[in-house]
Amino acid sequence: MDFPSKLIEEAVNQISKLPGIGKKTALRLVLHLVKERPESTLALTEALNNLRSQIRFCKHCFNISDAEVCSICVSHKRERSIVCVVEDTRDVMAIENTSQYTGLYHVLGGVISPINGVGPADLRIEPLIGRLNNGQSQIKEVILALSPTMEGDTTAFYINKRIKDLPLKISVIARGVPVGGDLEYTDEITLGRSILGRTLFG
Amino acid sequence: MDFPSKLIEEAVNQISKLPGIGKKTALRLVLHLVKERPESTLALTEALNNLRSQIRFCKHCFNISDAEVCSICVSHKRERSIVCVVEDTRDVMAIENTSQYTGLYHVLGGVISPINGVGPADLRIEPLIGRLNNGQSQIKEVILALSPTMEGDTTAFYINKRIKDLPLKISVIARGVPVGGDLEYTDEITLGRSILGRTLFG
Repeated sequence: MDFPSKLIEEAVNQISKLPGIGKKTALRLVLHLVKERPESTLALTEALNNLRSQIRFCKHCFNISDAEVCSICVSHKRERSIVCVVEDTRDVMAIENTSQYTGLYHVLGGVISPINGVGPADLRIEPLIGRLNNGQSQIKEVILALSPTMEGDTTAFYINKRIKDLPLKISVIARGVPVGGDLEYTDEITLGRSILGRTLFG
Repeated sequence: MDFPSKLIEEAVNQISKLPGIGKKTALRLVLHLVKERPESTLALTEALNNLRSQIRFCKHCFNISDAEVCSICVSHKRERSIVCVVEDTRDVMAIENTSQYTGLYHVLGGVISPINGVGPADLRIEPLIGRLNNGQSQIKEVILALSPTMEGDTTAFYINKRIKDLPLKISVIARGVPVGGDLEYTDEITLGRSILGRTLFG
């Protein structure tokens, strides 16, 4: 792509580094900003700079938080006996949206993925084990709520291996036919799992 | 959406103001930035701030330019007798990519769109007429290269009305079946136009 201006080129190059945004989309966004008032670009860049310089992670669960301890870890309404292990903040938000879970979380910050150079040491697995081993811990159950992918399964397998000797119940979220999904179009592996993992009716 | 942090919420709100980016995508982008090194966020925001504060438009054709006069208007290799009227910089880039055009441009900065509150006065139509009326102008032909939409057609119609009495040739880009397109799947209006606008073979 030949750009009429170095400023445009640099902005497009920077924006297209974001995941899922190619050069054409980046150019559309950049030209949108050029058309808008300068204040909207300033508001955008200020929000991003503030985010990046002030972002904090909860010292217990490593979820993104404005305070030292996040609102979930600090809440008296949450059950302190269950910890749900998830990949990132988006998963916390998704599970919170269901209103079906009242326990605590532990955010790994990723999943084991040798192809992307992410090993167990890059994730918050040691802090999780520290939390579980802590004498004052009230944790009785660990739910592994990782994505049903190769990387998610590997991570769950690794964590299970590390904590299986602790006096804890270890569970994984159910896999089966999605609610509202069509049985006919469900892939074989999911359908097979949903039969193996069948539960009593009602 | 309930966010775990005000910083995240503000960043997501700002990013999702961009066209075609919803809250979910914005959150994905924001969490990507949080995961990356702080320098990459700084590089992004700096590029956008530089762009917005230093951007200039060519004083002749209103294309985005790093200098007072853009590289196309300043070039001795370009034909000065033809001006191609386009909506925005992306169209200039698209036409330049074809290598089929060696004339000058005039960037309107939009098209007439009452529904979006854009009237003729919001576009660079008066400067175009000024360029064409200029005694020293060598312009002999104006090509109206606007999108084949209601707004594009309205704008072309308006410009034609304003300049049709000048001693100029006024042309529009050809409309017809796209190269590589399948006749069977071409919409009726395009196909109809391609028959009405047929040219001699070879």
